[in-house]
Amino acid sequence: MTFTPVDYNPYDFANRRHIGPSPSEMEAMLKAVGVTSLDALMDETVPASIRQSIPLGWAPLSEHDLLARMRAVAGRNKVMTSLIGQGYYGTVTPPAIQRNILENPAWYTAYTPYQPEIAQGRLEALLNYQTMVADLTGLPFANASLLDEATAAAEAMTMAERVAKSKARAFFVDEHCHPQTIGVIETRAKALGIKVIIGDPNAMQAAEVFGAIFQYPGTWGHVRDLTPWIDALHAAKAIAVVATDLLALCMLREPGAMGADIAVGSSQRFGVPMGYGGPHAAFFACKDEHKRQMPGRIVGVSIDARGNKAYRLSLQTREQHIRREKATSNVCTAQALLAVMASMYAVFHGPKGLRAISERVHSLTVRLAKALRDAGATLPQKQFFDTITVEVGVGQAGILAAARAEGLNFRKVGRDHVGISLDETSNEDVLRRVLRAFGIQDSPPAKAELGFAEKMLRETDYLTHPVFHMNRAESEMMRYMRRLSDRDLALDRAMIPLGSCTMKLNAAAEMMPITWPEFGSLHPFIPADQALGYREAIEDLSHKLCEITGYDAFSMQPNSGAQGEYAGLLTIAAYHRARGESHRNICLIPVSAHGTNPASAQMAGMAVVVVKAMPNGDVDVEDFRAKATAAGGNLAACMITYPSTHGVFEETVRDICKITHEFGGQVYLDGANMNALVGLVKPGEIGSDVSHLNLHKTFAIPHGGGGPGMGPIGVKAHLAPYLPGHSETGGEEGPVSAAPYGSASILLISWAYCLMMGGEGLTQATRVAILNANYIAARLKGAYPILFMGNKGRVAHECILDTRPFAEVGVTVDDIAKRLIDNGFHAPTMSWPVTGTLMVEPTESETKAEIDRFITALLAIRAEIKAVEDGEITAEDSPLRHAPHTVEDLVADWTRKYPREQGCFPPGAFRVDKYWPPIGRVDNVYGDRNLICICPPLESYMEAAE
Amino acid sequence: MTFTPVDYNPYDFANRRHIGPSPSEMEAMLKAVGVTSLDALMDETVPASIRQSIPLGWAPLSEHDLLARMRAVAGRNKVMTSLIGQGYYGTVTPPAIQRNILENPAWYTAYTPYQPEIAQGRLEALLNYQTMVADLTGLPFANASLLDEATAAAEAMTMAERVAKSKARAFFVDEHCHPQTIGVIETRAKALGIKVIIGDPNAMQAAEVFGAIFQYPGTWGHVRDLTPWIDALHAAKAIAVVATDLLALCMLREPGAMGADIAVGSSQRFGVPMGYGGPHAAFFACKDEHKRQMPGRIVGVSIDARGNKAYRLSLQTREQHIRREKATSNVCTAQALLAVMASMYAVFHGPKGLRAISERVHSLTVRLAKALRDAGATLPQKQFFDTITVEVGVGQAGILAAARAEGLNFRKVGRDHVGISLDETSNEDVLRRVLRAFGIQDSPPAKAELGFAEKMLRETDYLTHPVFHMNRAESEMMRYMRRLSDRDLALDRAMIPLGSCTMKLNAAAEMMPITWPEFGSLHPFIPADQALGYREAIEDLSHKLCEITGYDAFSMQPNSGAQGEYAGLLTIAAYHRARGESHRNICLIPVSAHGTNPASAQMAGMAVVVVKAMPNGDVDVEDFRAKATAAGGNLAACMITYPSTHGVFEETVRDICKITHEFGGQVYLDGANMNALVGLVKPGEIGSDVSHLNLHKTFAIPHGGGGPGMGPIGVKAHLAPYLPGHSETGGEEGPVSAAPYGSASILLISWAYCLMMGGEGLTQATRVAILNANYIAARLKGAYPILFMGNKGRVAHECILDTRPFAEVGVTVDDIAKRLIDNGFHAPTMSWPVTGTLMVEPTESETKAEIDRFITALLAIRAEIKAVEDGEITAEDSPLRHAPHTVEDLVADWTRKYPREQGCFPPGAFRVDKYWPPIGRVDNVYGDRNLICICPPLESYMEAAE
Repeated sequence: MTFTPVDYNPYDFANRRHIGPSPSEMEAMLKAVGVTSLDALMDETVPASIRQSIPLGWAPLSEHDLLARMRAVAGRNKVMTSLIGQGYYGTVTPPAIQRNILENPAWYTAYTPYQPEIAQGRLEALLNYQTMVADLTGLPFANASLLDEATAAAEAMTMAERVAKSKARAFFVDEHCHPQTIGVIETRAKALGIKVIIGDPNAMQAAEVFGAIFQYPGTWGHVRDLTPWIDALHAAKAIAVVATDLLALCMLREPGAMGADIAVGSSQRFGVPMGYGGPHAAFFACKDEHKRQMPGRIVGVSIDARGNKAYRLSLQTREQHIRREKATSNVCTAQALLAVMASMYAVFHGPKGLRAISERVHSLTVRLAKALRDAGATLPQKQFFDTITVEVGVGQAGILAAARAEGLNFRKVGRDHVGISLDETSNEDVLRRVLRAFGIQDSPPAKAELGFAEKMLRETDYLTHPVFHMNRAESEMMRYMRRLSDRDLALDRAMIPLGSCTMKLNAAAEMMPITWPEFGSLHPFIPADQALGYREAIEDLSHKLCEITGYDAFSMQPNSGAQGEYAGLLTIAAYHRARGESHRNICLIPVSAHGTNPASAQMAGMAVVVVKAMPNGDVDVEDFRAKATAAGGNLAACMITYPSTHGVFEETVRDICKITHEFGGQVYLDGANMNALVGLVKPGEIGSDVSHLNLHKTFAIPHGGGGPGMGPIGVKAHLAPYLPGHSETGGEEGPVSAAPYGSASILLISWAYCLMMGGEGLTQATRVAILNANYIAARLKGAYPILFMGNKGRVAHECILDTRPFAEVGVTVDDIAKRLIDNGFHAPTMSWPVTGTLMVEPTESETKAEIDRFITALLAIRAEIKAVEDGEITAEDSPLRHAPHTVEDLVADWTRKYPREQGCFPPGAFRVDKYWPPIGRVDNVYGDRNLICICPPLESYMEAAE
Repeated sequence: MTFTPVDYNPYDFANRRHIGPSPSEMEAMLKAVGVTSLDALMDETVPASIRQSIPLGWAPLSEHDLLARMRAVAGRNKVMTSLIGQGYYGTVTPPAIQRNILENPAWYTAYTPYQPEIAQGRLEALLNYQTMVADLTGLPFANASLLDEATAAAEAMTMAERVAKSKARAFFVDEHCHPQTIGVIETRAKALGIKVIIGDPNAMQAAEVFGAIFQYPGTWGHVRDLTPWIDALHAAKAIAVVATDLLALCMLREPGAMGADIAVGSSQRFGVPMGYGGPHAAFFACKDEHKRQMPGRIVGVSIDARGNKAYRLSLQTREQHIRREKATSNVCTAQALLAVMASMYAVFHGPKGLRAISERVHSLTVRLAKALRDAGATLPQKQFFDTITVEVGVGQAGILAAARAEGLNFRKVGRDHVGISLDETSNEDVLRRVLRAFGIQDSPPAKAELGFAEKMLRETDYLTHPVFHMNRAESEMMRYMRRLSDRDLALDRAMIPLGSCTMKLNAAAEMMPITWPEFGSLHPFIPADQALGYREAIEDLSHKLCEITGYDAFSMQPNSGAQGEYAGLLTIAAYHRARGESHRNICLIPVSAHGTNPASAQMAGMAVVVVKAMPNGDVDVEDFRAKATAAGGNLAACMITYPSTHGVFEETVRDICKITHEFGGQVYLDGANMNALVGLVKPGEIGSDVSHLNLHKTFAIPHGGGGPGMGPIGVKAHLAPYLPGHSETGGEEGPVSAAPYGSASILLISWAYCLMMGGEGLTQATRVAILNANYIAARLKGAYPILFMGNKGRVAHECILDTRPFAEVGVTVDDIAKRLIDNGFHAPTMSWPVTGTLMVEPTESETKAEIDRFITALLAIRAEIKAVEDGEITAEDSPLRHAPHTVEDLVADWTRKYPREQGCFPPGAFRVDKYWPPIGRVDNVYGDRNLICICPPLESYMEAAE
């Protein structure tokens, strides 16, 4: 008998593992939607005029083959001991933190904690982070992280301009700042028309600037007392920013004690692998008087419905609903997962441990400096912490080569110096190897003096809060991390149907390589031949993204979507400038755009002109043409989102591109909704010139509880020369991020996703994402009005449920969102793009069963609303208003007008495996009024418990 | 100023991470215990006469240095494609299963599910395993795993002897069985006096045997219809055992359909890495009529206090409380974690996926065979599944070398054949490499016939239960694994104070290397030069264990503690035999011994004589002397536990050893309580000749929810020649396990533990383990009588709380155990070694805070008992009897005689982070009466939900 194996591929990652609905489920869903096939649904949804003609080409890999490929690529990276410093340092990631946070889906698949009731765990960890930063910098107010140190410095500059009483228009930059920090500041300043003066602080004219930034310790290692310069700035009503290093601050006098207004830096060396550039959490701290001007997310303390302590994001209005034309910053994504890691590192070591690590690093550096000086070397630093620079004259290349032969990377400084930064991983062996690179065979001295003046020693305590004095046993730490994660609801327990946020599966196979040392331990500024694996990955990912988008070139530098928008607009501006059209400064943006769009445009130095929307949510093409005509020769760009932020494939997208080009403008197509396009439509083919891609949305990077993200930009060939450059990798334009490839290590996740899905699988994912959304719309349309269906009555990959009709009887969108928690769900996106609505995006990764559970929940909620409408119960008395229900509610006397069973086990909830929120509904007003953004003292925990 | 860094080592793994109490906590605890120092406590606890004089020598490594060392060692292993087969095959571990089970402390730190209310997750996963095994083998009853295939085969032989109606004393072994299986059967048979006949089944005389075992497919690949031989056995009232392969059974006619009574095998190739020999889960299935004679643990279905479906271990009396002199098996540890993995692999792929994998492997094999035959090769198999043997004559060495040059390992079969087994990871490239090794450059044929007769095709369905037809999306799988783990209480949430089980920290750093491919993908029978890393690790671990125990040699073969006992006694028996004293067959065992002791002695062919205990729990030395005298020249051994199973350092241990030696016997010191000895006392120095060490107790291997474990044995030099041998590594004696180094991959965990702790750290761990136990005894002695304090009023590393006095008022030890669940704790060991008591072992890893929480819980329970004693409430009405409390209790109407608050939030429970058991108290009687050990049909879930 001829034997033919069954035609079924169990290793088909795309169709068996990533895409949720099985073939039979899809059949049932198509039937509910009322179409005969996926093809037919696509025909009704995606205009034929914009469909790509050639399918995506590459074949898929199985999980097993992917990991084999990744191991081969990892093998082409060379793991050396990098003593380059410059903001990136070797560090020891405590294995308990690696395994229980970085490798744990309960942490990495969580969303940004906008729904505080289901995010108390990560909010506590982020509050610990803020407390740690505030303590170490000596400034009372810190945020929950920013993208990287250089971006934080640029944000500090613009904040300084906002808060300074000085009216000067220049910003002074200490020449001791890291080159990439200077680069990012210059890029930002140029677009905003701020003059940047780089130089020796001793030559600074304080009266001529609204602020200044100093690096402490400096990029070449100098430890300098900043007080005189800060005093001079304050005398001139200008703002002093200090870029600093948390490990150094464990020994050195803190910026707050020197009078600094703002401190920024990176927390990378607190246990976060270098990862060839990131992701790492930058920090940002400021004086109390400036706190309401601080960029980024801030975790604060409030109370819940029972008056118990509850964490939440404070002052959200400053950022989540970015204030469009008035925006001062487009910061949206932070680095939550890495901030959590850094905070846990501080909890793990406590102040005593951090102090010991800091002193150990310093002591090794002092001994190294002495050995070098004893051997006759010249070191320019009088005072230093962990970094020294050595004058090597014409021997520079030789010394660098000798270091490499010892397995070490030194920093090349100018033409005749080398820099050496020691770190937590340095030891006696490293010392000896460094000395051998200088031809010194003697052992370093056993002891030495302090490497800086005694008056520079820190005099204050830090990390005094009890959380940093936990017992340091691993059992205790492990249980603390587990308890925090159990308080949160993430993708590992339920779908997160967030419109515009695309919370799809983050597959285990995609996550595995990022913690391999061959990817984790690479410094971003190593010689190219040590990172051949990374280069290969980045190049292949670029090729695939070009094929997907129809663009010709990609820059991987922007490390968030908003950063991508900003970088894309800068690219457009540079293009106009190069053609002698620098007067082009008008950017057309539809009223329905993401709030980051206008914010980014302003950061790129453009004037925003808002275009109207039609009643159906589409861009008003006539208004668009009118505004473009008015802009005329000054039209720089338009920014559109496709499919629109209303979740519709507008038929007019080509017209809009055409009009823009007619007037000499460039089209920026926001890639936020790329999950509805991949494999079906190429932005570069329908008239767009540049887009960013949110790799953390469409390309499977997990949200990490609010970051990391990546927002690389693709451009057509004519824009390619104007993409961001970087001091380490060249290019005409300035950088937008600290590292040349942004958060390089997580690019591997998106690459793995593309490799395993294959071109066909990616396309099928898009189709199923659209099916899933239309299935929800079809099932719910009788219960909730669905806004903005396309002209064939279809939505794209998300749908908007209108809840405004219920306001009449007092039921709010918040009530519905919190009631979903009782059902075991994260709420959809609330009140965006339309107030009083819920935007639902199921993504392709959710199964029919999970979507049905969600529909069941929403239908049951609708029935509860109906009971209010029918006068059976008031909104105030209903389970809607009392949601979410907690175990405390069950234990307490029950005086509600509905039974316990109804309150706690609505039909969407699991019975045995129900998720219980640790707190009731959070009081937001209380929290904003009583702004507390560091860990409250222990007594307050006790009070809360009582 | 001279700068001296602070004297604090944040990388001190032993004192900062592994050992729970901080220095200040220890001070407080010493005070509570009433001693001035740890040294003083040791002096009061551990008799000076037995203390070791030289401290353990080696220096500790930090976590970072450990991982660097491990990576270097991993690099000395050579990862090849092993096509050796013989019970071990390449497999693809689904990354979602690796990350969410194997690398997840919620799964790997769990204890054996003796407390079903807090183990419903892993019980469900194990029930899935049993269902999978029952389905695939076609036998209705399966257990929850055994140690390895060879052990399972030996257990099948002894079970066959028990259940066969035939009175013959011989067992027939098919020559097609794996050599290691034959070896382990022979070892077992020899000790029990069973005659083993190895040969061609066609020559089998059924009337002369009580049973027979056949391998299907055979070790060289043959697929044979076993029916005629099985029929012949049945005609002779003998039992037919089939050792088989789960992947082959996805295509081949199942053993049940051929009439087999018992089926055994390994589930390794269902997603569990080879790991140089293990751990893997063996399976064991039998006909319904024999189920109560089946060895090992069996998960069954019962109901809880509300009548809801509840899983539990069935027929526990057969094994947990091993029936001493009547024991038929000493199986205690199983391979729960690996069985869970294999069951999840089946859930992940479902029957269709498994069938596809099976057919794919078979198709590749058929094509390979055809290509070889076309090229003129001779293959003895007429029918085969995935394994072929090729006649190569004198060219054997050349072919093996050519294969290695292609990165392949073939199996060396005899002197003139090679064996090739394909597996799930095989592909076209592997086919081509195999052919090239034979000098064949042509491509293999594209298609071929079925490799066996059509009548051998399986005709029945399998895995029809809905759990194997879940949607296979990773989101769904991930959530299923999360939900199951959330139902369970493991070390990642709370201490597990199990007396004699030593549930200490399983550090993340210790766990990391085991999933590296350089350790995971090695076949146990590869040439030694491909496993140099493993050899180095095993050798260094042996050295360290020798130093710790005072023994001269170690065998790493036994993969459980009980297996170690058995191996140790076999070693003693072999020693006597070699001296011409094979008549020595009496083994003295104190009445207080672990139940496995007498069971192991009987398995080793010894007659057990029980020695009395003194009222204080010590061995009655006079009785011991009398029994030894009576045994005289027939004394083979004594088995003692030290410190005793009562948790006391008996002063007379040297006397007992001396008496034993006087009469020519050997001393077996059970290492179960080694956690009270390491660094303080060396068994080899106080008179013992052999011990096993439970590496999963004292040396940090996690319990995995009921396995894996490792029980290597150490011996004095005179016994070393008689340690277990193995067909692959030589030795005079027979093997006790399938692989030469047992479950080799988890030896890395114990090695990592020893390396990071250092000698001093290990010693300190022992001291703190003793402190923690004495602290509990000191704090609880007013509330509960503490049994068996030493003559200075001290316990060793565990203490026994007497709860018998409460029986008078109707409060049982079960009530207390279940009430501890409400407090968020796993119960201590119940009713062992004394009925009606709780044995508590906190281990050194628990912090004072956690121990205090436990004490708080026990004191609150005591107060609740007092309320019963005082007549305030009856035992039946009290929260003790209603424990554990569930959310269902809270939601339902509350008719209890105590408040909800008291029931659900006793003082030990966390408020926000409380653990809620998914079910109420399990009805054991119902479960044993209604024995159901495969997944119940879906309707029954629905019923239970209603």
